[in-house]
Amino acid sequence: MSEVYAARRDRVRERCAAGGGAAALVSRAANVRYLAGAAPHGAVLLVGKDEDVLLCGRPPSDQQGEGRPDEALRMQVLAAPGADPAVAGAGLAAAQGAETLAVEEHDLTVARHRALGSVAPRLRLLDLGTAVEQLRLVKDEEEISCLRIAAEIADQALGELLESILVGRTERHLALELERRLVDHGADGPAFPTSVGTGPHSGRSAHRPSDRRVEEGDFLSVCLGASYRGYRCEIGRTFVIGTSPADWQIELYDLVFAAQRAGREALVPGAACRDVDRAARHVLDSAGYADGLAPLTGHGVGLEIDEDPQLAPAAMGKLDVCVPVTVEPGVHLPGRGGVRIDDTLVVRPEADGGPELLTITTKELLAL
Amino acid sequence: MSEVYAARRDRVRERCAAGGGAAALVSRAANVRYLAGAAPHGAVLLVGKDEDVLLCGRPPSDQQGEGRPDEALRMQVLAAPGADPAVAGAGLAAAQGAETLAVEEHDLTVARHRALGSVAPRLRLLDLGTAVEQLRLVKDEEEISCLRIAAEIADQALGELLESILVGRTERHLALELERRLVDHGADGPAFPTSVGTGPHSGRSAHRPSDRRVEEGDFLSVCLGASYRGYRCEIGRTFVIGTSPADWQIELYDLVFAAQRAGREALVPGAACRDVDRAARHVLDSAGYADGLAPLTGHGVGLEIDEDPQLAPAAMGKLDVCVPVTVEPGVHLPGRGGVRIDDTLVVRPEADGGPELLTITTKELLAL
Repeated sequence: MSEVYAARRDRVRERCAAGGGAAALVSRAANVRYLAGAAPHGAVLLVGKDEDVLLCGRPPSDQQGEGRPDEALRMQVLAAPGADPAVAGAGLAAAQGAETLAVEEHDLTVARHRALGSVAPRLRLLDLGTAVEQLRLVKDEEEISCLRIAAEIADQALGELLESILVGRTERHLALELERRLVDHGADGPAFPTSVGTGPHSGRSAHRPSDRRVEEGDFLSVCLGASYRGYRCEIGRTFVIGTSPADWQIELYDLVFAAQRAGREALVPGAACRDVDRAARHVLDSAGYADGLAPLTGHGVGLEIDEDPQLAPAAMGKLDVCVPVTVEPGVHLPGRGGVRIDDTLVVRPEADGGPELLTITTKELLAL
Repeated sequence: MSEVYAARRDRVRERCAAGGGAAALVSRAANVRYLAGAAPHGAVLLVGKDEDVLLCGRPPSDQQGEGRPDEALRMQVLAAPGADPAVAGAGLAAAQGAETLAVEEHDLTVARHRALGSVAPRLRLLDLGTAVEQLRLVKDEEEISCLRIAAEIADQALGELLESILVGRTERHLALELERRLVDHGADGPAFPTSVGTGPHSGRSAHRPSDRRVEEGDFLSVCLGASYRGYRCEIGRTFVIGTSPADWQIELYDLVFAAQRAGREALVPGAACRDVDRAARHVLDSAGYADGLAPLTGHGVGLEIDEDPQLAPAAMGKLDVCVPVTVEPGVHLPGRGGVRIDDTLVVRPEADGGPELLTITTKELLAL
C-alpha cells in the first residue's frame, strides 16, 4: 500500500506546484486518511518540499478504527497536550524553507488559519481547495474491494433482520440491532446513523428512529451502511408488514422501483450527473410526485458517506469509470408513509457489463 | 423557557455591543441550541439589531433530537437546496442595516467566512470569539435537572449491565448493549461513544471497544453517558471479573479511588481548575504513576460532552457554583490494564453540602 499513498501524495505535490505552492497542509480527516493511510484524531498531513510528515496530537492506534499510517511516512506526535497539529505543521513547513503553504480553507476555521499565519509569518498561505477530494472521486480496485466488503456486511445485517420478528418492535430497537449486526460481521462501525422508518415515517430520507412500533400493514423502510477500513457504503430497502400489501403500497413501490432502476441504468461512463438524476426523478415527476422530492437522488461514497459527485438537477460534471455512487430515489406521502430504494453501485464500462451493483439484497417488494 | 432563551440572546447582544458589534451570527451547533432551543442540522442564529432569526437549510424536527425552537424566534427555512444558512444570515444582517457582524471564527471555516464577506461586502466581520461558550459555563437549574436525568439514565443502564452475565462477551457487545439500554431509558442517545475495556484494555481513557472477550480475573472498565434534551453526562467505573481480585488490582483500585475522591473534594466554589487537577493527579504522581497520565483529570459537561472548564495542570480560571464537571483520574499499565473512575458532579456551595454527585453508581470495587 505504501507506494499507493506515496503516489497520491505526489499528485497533491503536483497540484501544489501547479498552483505556485511549495507545500500543502491537509487537515480534513478523510483527506488525511486517503494520503497517509490513517487519520488519528486531529492529525494533519504536511505534504512538504523535502518530506511528508503526519502530525498527531496523540499516538495513533488502529484499534481506534483510524487505520494504520503509511510506514514510509514520518510521524510526529506533539508533546504539548492540546497543541494544534496544523500549527505545528505550518511551523515545520517554514522550517523546511517553504515560502508558501496551501491549506484546506474549506476545512480550517478562521481562528486556526490565523494561528497558522502567526506561527510562520513569512509563510504565504494559499488555498488548496478541494484538490484532495477531487483525487478521491475515482477509486482504485483496492478501495472498491473495501466498499464491496462493506456492502456485503450491510447485506448480511439486513438479511438477518428480515428473518426476525418485526411487529411490535420500535424503530430504535431495529436500528440498534442492525448496527450491532454490522459490527458482528466485521464493520468498523455503521457508516452513518442507521435509519428505520415505520408506517407514516417510512420513505423519509435520513429518518431518525423513534419509539414507534412496527404494525401490521406498515411500510417499513430501512437505510443502513457499514464502514470497512474507512470505506462507507449505503443500502436502503422498503418492505411491507403483513401478508398482503394494499394496492396503493404496490403502486407506490412499483413507481419508486422504476425510478431507481432508471437511475441505475443511466450510470454509464461519461453520463452527466444531472442526467442520472433526471432519469430517476422524471419517473416520479411524471407520476405527479414532483413536490417534496429530496434534492438529491444519489451521491458518491468512499471515505465519507456523502461525497462528490452529487446526483442532483443542478449538479455539474460527468461520471467516470470506477466512481461509486448511490441511487436512492424515494417518495414520502405525509401522514401515510412511503418508499425509498437505495443501492451503492460502481460505474463500469458497458463492455464490462455496466454498473457494478454492490448492495445485492433483493428489491422485490417483500411482505414480512 | 422562551424567556430564558431571549435572556441568553440579550446577553449575547450586550457582548456584541460592548465589542462594537451590531449583530452576531452564531454557527456552532451547541451555541445555536443554547440560544434558540434547537439546532436543526446546519442552522445558524442571527442575533440581530431588530430581531433574532433562526436560519435553517431544512425544516426543523424535534424527532431528530435537535430540540424545539423557541416559538418567540422567527424561523427562516432556505428554499435553495445546499444554500449556506450562514451566508443567508449575513445577508439578512446587512438588510437589517447592521454595519458590523460578529461571527464565531473558531467555528466558521475560512471558505465560509469569505462567502459571508462576499454576500455582504459592506458588512464588517468581527470575531465573537467564545462569548457563547463562556455564557454556557454556569448552568441554570433547568439545565442541571436535564444533566441529573441524563445521569440517572446512565446509572440505570450500567446497573442493568452489572446484573447480566459478562464473562465471554466482547467489549463491542457490552458497549452496544449499554447504548441500547440508554435509549430504552429515555436518552436521546449516547452522549459519546461508549467505551468498554477489558483486561489489558481496562483503564484506558476513550478506549474504543474491540472484539476482546471478558475473562475471569480481568479488570473491566466502562465509560458511558446519556444525552437528555441535548445535555450530556458521563460516568466511568472499573470492576473486577471473578470472585476475588488480585492484590495488585486492589492496590491500584484503592489508589485511583483515593485520587478521584481527592479531586471530588477539591470541587469548591472559587477553586482554581488547576488545583482540582493537582489534587487528583498528586495522589497518582506520588505513587509513582506520573508518566502516562491523561492530560486532563476532568472537564465541563453540558450541551457538549467536553466543554470548559478543563481540569488540567495548565488550566486557567476558577470554578463557579453551578458548573458541572467530570472527575476522572485513571491509571493504565501497558499490557496489564488499569483503573479509571469517572463521575459527573455540580459545584455547589459548601453550605449546601458541597459538590452534587449526579452519577451515583457505587464506587466500591465490585467483583462480578
